[in-house]
Amino acid sequence: MAQDNLSLVLHAKEDLRLENRPIPEPGPNEVLLQMHSVGICGSDVHYWQNGRIGDFVLKKPMVLGHEASGRVAKVGSEVKHLKVGDRVAIEPGVPREMDEFFKTGRYNLSPTIFFCATPPDDGNLCRYYTHSANFCYKLPDNVTFEEGALIEPLSVGIHACRRAGVTLGSTVFVCGAGPIGLVCLLAAKAMGASQVVISDLSEERLLMAKDLGADFLLTVRRGDGAQQLAKSVEEMLGAQPHITIECTGVESCIQTAIYATRSGGVVVLVGLGSELATVPLINAAVREVDIRGVFRYCNTWPMAIAMLASGKVNVKPLVTHRFPLEQAVQAFETTRQGLGIKVMLKCDKNDQNP
Amino acid sequence: MAQDNLSLVLHAKEDLRLENRPIPEPGPNEVLLQMHSVGICGSDVHYWQNGRIGDFVLKKPMVLGHEASGRVAKVGSEVKHLKVGDRVAIEPGVPREMDEFFKTGRYNLSPTIFFCATPPDDGNLCRYYTHSANFCYKLPDNVTFEEGALIEPLSVGIHACRRAGVTLGSTVFVCGAGPIGLVCLLAAKAMGASQVVISDLSEERLLMAKDLGADFLLTVRRGDGAQQLAKSVEEMLGAQPHITIECTGVESCIQTAIYATRSGGVVVLVGLGSELATVPLINAAVREVDIRGVFRYCNTWPMAIAMLASGKVNVKPLVTHRFPLEQAVQAFETTRQGLGIKVMLKCDKNDQNP
Amino acid sequence: MAQDNLSLVLHAKEDLRLENRPIPEPGPNEVLLQMHSVGICGSDVHYWQNGRIGDFVLKKPMVLGHEASGRVAKVGSEVKHLKVGDRVAIEPGVPREMDEFFKTGRYNLSPTIFFCATPPDDGNLCRYYTHSANFCYKLPDNVTFEEGALIEPLSVGIHACRRAGVTLGSTVFVCGAGPIGLVCLLAAKAMGASQVVISDLSEERLLMAKDLGADFLLTVRRGDGAQQLAKSVEEMLGAQPHITIECTGVESCIQTAIYATRSGGVVVLVGLGSELATVPLINAAVREVDIRGVFRYCNTWPMAIAMLASGKVNVKPLVTHRFPLEQAVQAFETTRQGLGIKVMLKCDKNDQNP
Amino acid sequence: MAQDNLSLVLHAKEDLRLENRPIPEPGPNEVLLQMHSVGICGSDVHYWQNGRIGDFVLKKPMVLGHEASGRVAKVGSEVKHLKVGDRVAIEPGVPREMDEFFKTGRYNLSPTIFFCATPPDDGNLCRYYTHSANFCYKLPDNVTFEEGALIEPLSVGIHACRRAGVTLGSTVFVCGAGPIGLVCLLAAKAMGASQVVISDLSEERLLMAKDLGADFLLTVRRGDGAQQLAKSVEEMLGAQPHITIECTGVESCIQTAIYATRSGGVVVLVGLGSELATVPLINAAVREVDIRGVFRYCNTWPMAIAMLASGKVNVKPLVTHRFPLEQAVQAFETTRQGLGIKVMLKCDKNDQNP
Ligand SMILES: NC(=O)c1ccc[n+]([C@@H]2O[C@H](COP(=O)([O-])OP(=O)(O)OC[C@H]3O[C@@H](n4cnc5c(N)ncnc54)[C@H](O)[C@@H]3O)[C@@H](O)[C@H]2O)c1
Ligand SMILES: NC(=O)c1ccc[n+]([C@@H]2O[C@H](COP(=O)([O-])OP(=O)(O)OC[C@H]3O[C@@H](n4cnc5c(N)ncnc54)[C@H](O)[C@@H]3O)[C@@H](O)[C@H]2O)c1
Ligand SMILES: NC(=O)c1ccc[n+]([C@@H]2O[C@H](COP(=O)([O-])OP(=O)(O)OC[C@H]3O[C@@H](n4cnc5c(N)ncnc54)[C@H](O)[C@@H]3O)[C@@H](O)[C@H]2O)c1
Ligand SMILES: NC(=O)c1ccc[n+]([C@@H]2O[C@H](COP(=O)([O-])OP(=O)(O)OC[C@H]3O[C@@H](n4cnc5c(N)ncnc54)[C@H](O)[C@@H]3O)[C@@H](O)[C@H]2O)c1
Ligand SMILES: [Zn+2]
Ligand SMILES: [Zn+2]
Ligand SMILES: [Zn+2]
Ligand SMILES: [Zn+2]
Repeated sequence: MAQDNLSLVLHAKEDLRLENRPIPEPGPNEVLLQMHSVGICGSDVHYWQNGRIGDFVLKKPMVLGHEASGRVAKVGSEVKHLKVGDRVAIEPGVPREMDEFFKTGRYNLSPTIFFCATPPDDGNLCRYYTHSANFCYKLPDNVTFEEGALIEPLSVGIHACRRAGVTLGSTVFVCGAGPIGLVCLLAAKAMGASQVVISDLSEERLLMAKDLGADFLLTVRRGDGAQQLAKSVEEMLGAQPHITIECTGVESCIQTAIYATRSGGVVVLVGLGSELATVPLINAAVREVDIRGVFRYCNTWPMAIAMLASGKVNVKPLVTHRFPLEQAVQAFETTRQGLGIKVMLKCDKNDQNP
Repeated sequence: MAQDNLSLVLHAKEDLRLENRPIPEPGPNEVLLQMHSVGICGSDVHYWQNGRIGDFVLKKPMVLGHEASGRVAKVGSEVKHLKVGDRVAIEPGVPREMDEFFKTGRYNLSPTIFFCATPPDDGNLCRYYTHSANFCYKLPDNVTFEEGALIEPLSVGIHACRRAGVTLGSTVFVCGAGPIGLVCLLAAKAMGASQVVISDLSEERLLMAKDLGADFLLTVRRGDGAQQLAKSVEEMLGAQPHITIECTGVESCIQTAIYATRSGGVVVLVGLGSELATVPLINAAVREVDIRGVFRYCNTWPMAIAMLASGKVNVKPLVTHRFPLEQAVQAFETTRQGLGIKVMLKCDKNDQNP
Repeated sequence: MAQDNLSLVLHAKEDLRLENRPIPEPGPNEVLLQMHSVGICGSDVHYWQNGRIGDFVLKKPMVLGHEASGRVAKVGSEVKHLKVGDRVAIEPGVPREMDEFFKTGRYNLSPTIFFCATPPDDGNLCRYYTHSANFCYKLPDNVTFEEGALIEPLSVGIHACRRAGVTLGSTVFVCGAGPIGLVCLLAAKAMGASQVVISDLSEERLLMAKDLGADFLLTVRRGDGAQQLAKSVEEMLGAQPHITIECTGVESCIQTAIYATRSGGVVVLVGLGSELATVPLINAAVREVDIRGVFRYCNTWPMAIAMLASGKVNVKPLVTHRFPLEQAVQAFETTRQGLGIKVMLKCDKNDQNP
Repeated sequence: MAQDNLSLVLHAKEDLRLENRPIPEPGPNEVLLQMHSVGICGSDVHYWQNGRIGDFVLKKPMVLGHEASGRVAKVGSEVKHLKVGDRVAIEPGVPREMDEFFKTGRYNLSPTIFFCATPPDDGNLCRYYTHSANFCYKLPDNVTFEEGALIEPLSVGIHACRRAGVTLGSTVFVCGAGPIGLVCLLAAKAMGASQVVISDLSEERLLMAKDLGADFLLTVRRGDGAQQLAKSVEEMLGAQPHITIECTGVESCIQTAIYATRSGGVVVLVGLGSELATVPLINAAVREVDIRGVFRYCNTWPMAIAMLASGKVNVKPLVTHRFPLEQAVQAFETTRQGLGIKVMLKCDKNDQNP
């Protein structure tokens, strides 16, 4: 076993450092993981640039990274379902308390949950990392480490589509073709959506969406009216979509989402914007268009692994860039500039394969 | 059978007239009803004062009234489940088309639905009125005509609580103690809510709420902060309510509703306000507080009758004023001034009992 | 328009005749259809061989056929959404009464529903047939008439999977690889099932299932124990399936279905067997395995058309035989002998294409 | 603190002994409880008489009792929400593993769950007992210890009604008026059922049901036909019940349950009978009557406490007998003879109040 534990630590706003930390010991219900692939998320970059997201404020140095997979290097005394050498995907949120949310199966809502790279909890952009064994899921041989890491963003898409109730023959409008919009597209298709319209400002991102299976692309120009865009969506599909999944957080997109959705349908809010939003709530209310939020996910890893193993969902094209952990700052800069879709950091010096 | 058909007709904004109309003949699937009790609704008054509600604009004279019950006077040739003399409650919304909404059991969302006293469809504030027999429900002997008429507003409460998922042990916050807030309170209690907080500006309305079973009263003063009111609700209940039912349509109340509701809970929007509302949507989204609208109701009459017949819901105290049909304008004036809760018009000259 | 209306009429048990009937006139809400493709269903054969299914007894001559598509030849006076020439798929069940089942969106349960080729209601194995326009669905250009006809059996699969709650990552066990088992397989895959095990006595049918996407084939031998078969299913999947869809009606298969299904999962009963069945109900109860029946379907045509149009479900391989209407008896004999999967009757003399 | 820990220990079939055991120490996440009131359940008596229930076989001495409440005497080092002196109700099932069932909020289905007085896990018919603090719920001042103990059986009723989907205006048929049938009746009424029919062989138990709010009593005589009883239920209600809750485990009752229930409705199986049952499964399937099992409960204590505190559910009349712990064997004999409804054992020498 290697001796160093190179880690990407955010010390303060705009102060990102690669430094060596001690290799931790797993507790009785934990495993020590040799990290393999960790994707960079918009939130990682946001903490780097701003030192905070909403009420979560960086107050002490924190390791970044939460889209991750690795190999079991050591097993805690109570752990039964994993053994050294197992390849696993890591669910970054681990509830700390057995509160009402956990007991009822919605542990993502537990206010005291541990979450990788959400202050003050350390993430896993490092060489060695310990995690609750119950939230590490064994990968089948035909699922790569990178696919394993991509389960994290994919889970947001699965949870969004599940909360939306996507089912056979659903028509879906996805606002925004960033990484999150794209995983919503993939999840919607896998759950039986017959047609998906996806919108973005960027032609390039829309082309990626097309490759991933989008049926219609809606190029948005800043200043386009919400009702007019809603009309365009209706015209593309021949009817209003049953479901809209908002993945930009932009106020005008939330407006479009409401106007666009069919009566009795659902708008899911994935994108996170400003605290107050001005929206046509009455339009939604009198047409019984439900508005449902998404906070991360829960209970998605097993189904995501099943889908990846069966080959029914293909997330591989999402990875557009790869960097060794040593070049993490460069990698972050790539994401910051909005180049490509997903940047992967390769944490295992001896295995930089997907 | 009497010869006249005195009817309350709105000719234009602020032009309300009592006039005689011909007694209609029931079509093959209709019944002719001798009207007995018809409640005045805020929307009736609104049409009278403004000539429109949103996109529904009065363009030709329209009979008002939609909270109604009466006695079958004549039966169409195809009608089997009703006979002359039956006492019935009238569901005012009758789908015209067998569209996707009707086929899936959400006929209230059908855009072409007939609805009493929504332009251009005539209501039933008159002596004789024909209606689809399928939307007339026989009243048991122990349910009065007025209770039958009150099923209409009660249905809004039932539909709201059903969409909210009120169940055993739910804690509920109802914003607004007007007629609609009060029926939501009644329905919530009947569906198993353990504790209900209700708010209003008016002490008098809150006292009525107390009589009807509210556990906590929250007197609101104009200018109270939304977050502060949310805090008060939490303090009264000892925890945030699972469910909030907004029955004012006021923007600050929608804000309070969102802040007040427990993570994973539901805000139901019953109140109808201005087209755009500025609300803390992100607060709802990241706590997965669903926002669900209510447009009238569907499939509520049978369960409402069952509850009234069983004595488990008591709507009688809602009726605070009664007028004979001949004094309809006076009755409307009473409602306009916000006196009491529900004003009943008595349409049967020979029987003005409840 | 042709003058004859050759029709396949069942006069009594084992007395099947091709005869000419008058071309009917559509009522105001109906369309006259020139029939194109009609599949033969096990129930058609069953009526032919036995003169009854359960309580449905043939008492007077009845036209057979209910898996059908055709072209609009005439339009009733009130019909708005269809015009002459439109190609349509026919939903054979049309509710007659606006009862509680219809109003709540479960019209398949309406006891007075009209249903093609269920005594005493005539089916559509004929040249010209009238049907409620509201239950005729326009086919897009890229969906063939035969696909349109196959929507009927596919709907059974969709309804079964919907009642089962098949979703992303579901593992599903389908008992029986007859036409109905196969459409359940197709629907399950389209709704996101990650793995499907299918069983049958017939190797040939299992090979068809493999072609249609089954992940595991379980060849059953008469006399195999229910618990042992359940164990085999578990071994194939690596865990018990979330859902079992029983499509044989055989008692031992229902037993297998219960033993096989994961705790908290669902068994759907599609197959129809003898009136009483001896089953391990307690095993299901204490593991909260729900047992849900399927009676035909409701609200499936729009989503089925959407899936066929999008190319995400391919039913074409199900058609293994074709006969012109004139050879209907031969066609029925083919189905009776269990040859192939689906036999199509081609009712349009001038167009016998798929 | 007292020094003895008198405990009711089942050593083998028919070998029940009161003996002194050491007072245990609470683990870090546990509390030590001074037991106050413990109800005797049919299952306790069954273990005593038979040494087993199904696959659960007594292999070593086990303390009986699982319907319990007590006072916190000591608090584990990690426990935050409880303190010495708190009065609590005990949820007897505590999941041991964070498996898929626990993570999805259905921990009652976890196969490795700890459960009081299910071999080999000790129950709490003793003076002092340690339990996971997360499964001890603080009682408000206005809820008695006995009400606290009765939350256990009440939870079975709540879970049954929740799985049944009892809601406003539901009509419900409960088979069997033993303790479990009675709590189902109470829960159904509290969740909005408009009318409940309850059946039993015993007139006396039916009279208790009447006192608790049953609307109709159906006295069953051995040998009554299932279809005929179903007909009686329909006649009492004027229509078939939406929901039937089977609380006897008797095969003929399950048959009655299926025949009795309205199309589209639900049969819930609470009663546990023999391994195989012969039932009219096809009758259920073609009418889409769902059959759902109940295994204990999960997530019921908070709502049960809310209902008891609000006074909306009154379980007090269920307690018909009380014995001090020292007379436990006599108490068990009372239950064995079927006298009364619920026998309470009073475990606190200094406080034998309700
Ligand atoms: N709720 C959750 O649990 C959760 C989890 C992850 C991410 N998020 C949020 O989801 C959102 C998307 O994440 P991402 O990583 O894909 O971000 P991103 O910034 O990479 O993608 C957003 C995309 O939206 C597009 N866009 C901007 N304005 C638009 C407009 N008016 N119309 C159409 N498209 C427009 C941008 O061009 C961009 O491609 C972010 O707000 C993020 O905070 C939420
Ligand atoms: N969605 C539907 O299908 C539907 C059906 C019927 C009524 N409505 C709507 O429901 C609402 C209520 O109807 P109603 O007949 O009870 O009206 P109402 O005007 O009689 O009652 C509204 C109550 O809200 C109170 N209120 C106002 N501002 C408040 C504040 N800041 N905080 C707390 N309370 C406040 C008022 O004092 C009043 O008592 C209306 O907006 C109406 O349009 C909707
Ligand atoms: N509920 C409904 O609405 C509905 C609708 C259509 C059909 N059905 C029923 O569905 C069932 C299937 O219909 P189908 O047209 O596919 O019939 P089918 O007879 O063509 O197919 C049944 C298949 O089950 C197989 N089978 C028999 N015993 C088996 C066993 N022990 N293990 C595994 N497989 C076994 C047979 O080999 C056959 O391939 C029938 O019972 C039919 O009545 C129900
Ligand atoms: N599923 C679970 O989690 C769970 C939990 C607790 C109890 N149970 C089961 O619930 C059932 C009821 O428990 P209980 O404590 O009330 O038992 P109990 O024996 O006290 O009550 C059963 C009642 O059913 C009546 N009965 C018997 N045959 C009848 C018939 N043919 N028609 C009508 N009534 C009839 C009896 O007279 C008796 O009053 C038992 O089978 C028990 O094992 C299940
Ligand atoms: Zn992320
Ligand atoms: Zn109204
Ligand atoms: Zn068929
Ligand atoms: Zn018990």
